[in-house]
Amino acid sequence: MTRGARGGIDLGGTKIQTVVVDADSNVRGEARHPTPTSGGPQDVADVMASALREAADAAGVEPSALIGVGIGSPGAIDASAGTVSGARNLPGWEGTFSLAAALGEQLGTPVLLGNDVQVATDAEVALGAGRGYRSLLGVFWGTGVGGGIVLDGNPWLGRGAAGEIGHIVIRRGGRRCPCGRHGCLEAYAGRAAMEARAREKHAEGHKTDLFKLMEHHGRTRLTSGIWARALEHGDKLATELIDEAVEALGAGIASAVNLLDCEAVVIGGGLGVRFGEPMAERIAAAMQPHLFVDEHPPDVRLAALGDLGGAVGAALLARGAR
Amino acid sequence: MTRGARGGIDLGGTKIQTVVVDADSNVRGEARHPTPTSGGPQDVADVMASALREAADAAGVEPSALIGVGIGSPGAIDASAGTVSGARNLPGWEGTFSLAAALGEQLGTPVLLGNDVQVATDAEVALGAGRGYRSLLGVFWGTGVGGGIVLDGNPWLGRGAAGEIGHIVIRRGGRRCPCGRHGCLEAYAGRAAMEARAREKHAEGHKTDLFKLMEHHGRTRLTSGIWARALEHGDKLATELIDEAVEALGAGIASAVNLLDCEAVVIGGGLGVRFGEPMAERIAAAMQPHLFVDEHPPDVRLAALGDLGGAVGAALLARGAR
Repeated sequence: MTRGARGGIDLGGTKIQTVVVDADSNVRGEARHPTPTSGGPQDVADVMASALREAADAAGVEPSALIGVGIGSPGAIDASAGTVSGARNLPGWEGTFSLAAALGEQLGTPVLLGNDVQVATDAEVALGAGRGYRSLLGVFWGTGVGGGIVLDGNPWLGRGAAGEIGHIVIRRGGRRCPCGRHGCLEAYAGRAAMEARAREKHAEGHKTDLFKLMEHHGRTRLTSGIWARALEHGDKLATELIDEAVEALGAGIASAVNLLDCEAVVIGGGLGVRFGEPMAERIAAAMQPHLFVDEHPPDVRLAALGDLGGAVGAALLARGAR
Repeated sequence: MTRGARGGIDLGGTKIQTVVVDADSNVRGEARHPTPTSGGPQDVADVMASALREAADAAGVEPSALIGVGIGSPGAIDASAGTVSGARNLPGWEGTFSLAAALGEQLGTPVLLGNDVQVATDAEVALGAGRGYRSLLGVFWGTGVGGGIVLDGNPWLGRGAAGEIGHIVIRRGGRRCPCGRHGCLEAYAGRAAMEARAREKHAEGHKTDLFKLMEHHGRTRLTSGIWARALEHGDKLATELIDEAVEALGAGIASAVNLLDCEAVVIGGGLGVRFGEPMAERIAAAMQPHLFVDEHPPDVRLAALGDLGGAVGAALLARGAR
């Protein structure tokens, strides 16, 4: 399967997901490692390289035989320089690091960089739930709330930082967001913000099984799976917080649609993928009261590529790399 | 000046502004009439035709000698069919009317249609405060709050209804908007909504000179000029409501910038133009706390074409009409 094989790396704050895909973007090998929580960019790059080697091994191809490797990265990307700056969720990565060069050297193949959310959006457009749409908003509902925009069939990047739907203001003067501002969508819907809120409420004496479930499953954070289990158990606080998140997502996404008038919205991310189709329908319903052209809503679809979407999208960057 | 002359009509809910411009878009004649408040689309078209004839007369050109006439219209525009539907601010215009044909027949020249806010945005990009920017958001702050988007140098229309920045939700579950929804930017910043709020507050016993000023100047509504005078007098209620509008505009525009990451924002519309440069600076300051990439804000500029921008922008539609 060597011919046309490409690598993709989804560089997340908690995990590094790698894939090797064939010329048709079918996944032929994958590997996942936790993201280092200490050290610096070079340590992260080392883990990325070994995870990619594992995926290549599983696919039966040498890394150096890949057309190239794409990386979907957080932080500020300079694709032409091959650098990532200010990736605050990664250890010691406040400055600028030449990630493409560092990894390219280790793997012996060209390395290309893109924004993590944008490559996941591009993957859905090329291969997933966004196929056939010319204009689309990808909403990645996880630790934060990220967004990717496709207009006229092409990614819209603005000056490099477009798509920050998580920081649309849905309540001026509202709750403090992990970004430090107030009233952002992410302050109500991001998993990190919801966890902080749940801890506060729990400390105030509100009953919830969220933290018992977390410990029972050997977690230190309220993962998507823990939220899903708590909802299944009918946990009152979890239900309230998720209801609030859905209402916030409805208002924020509808605002974006009122501005862009795009054909479709694709809901992905850890929470989005975990909760699945019924939640995409709830979000669509929560958008409806805020849509200006409410007789012509966009299609709302669940991301089809699941957890691997980011890595498969990153691999798209490497098409035609050499 | 016949060679290359074009007509432009800004069809507003309160006034019909016409211009005749030369090949370089310099205004050579203009006329303004109140928009009929009764009758139907044909009556509106008749007033548009005579206002355009006056402008042509002032420019010393026969309407039939114009390359064409462009119209910036509210409602749903079908540019290829030449129709306007559901223009709720115009009398008896709930249905679809063949405005291009009706006016073309009377004037003896091709008539082209565009969205009122989008042509005003295009005018600022081609001739005004938006020159030199490749991506831009036009915000027209008047009776309502309208928006026009230019990306990569071209208007972005979505499925025909893009740019509705007035209906970005800035406070979920907030104040009722003239559109019937809740918490929209326009519910806090639109002149119609502010007037309704001022009347409520006045009826509740809040002191204000707004309505005295209105009567003194022979108005039946709180025009941009009345608001400006009340602010100059230090009227407490007027100051409060405008402060609130500025904060709302700051949050709503910043949300749009977080999504689009455009290079510039141009502030126009009746209130925007009337309040001028200092207010554009206040709006920029109100955006700042909500900008995700706050070290790299877009330029915020006051619309340069003033009251005639809509009509001059409409005349741009007629370039190359025949």
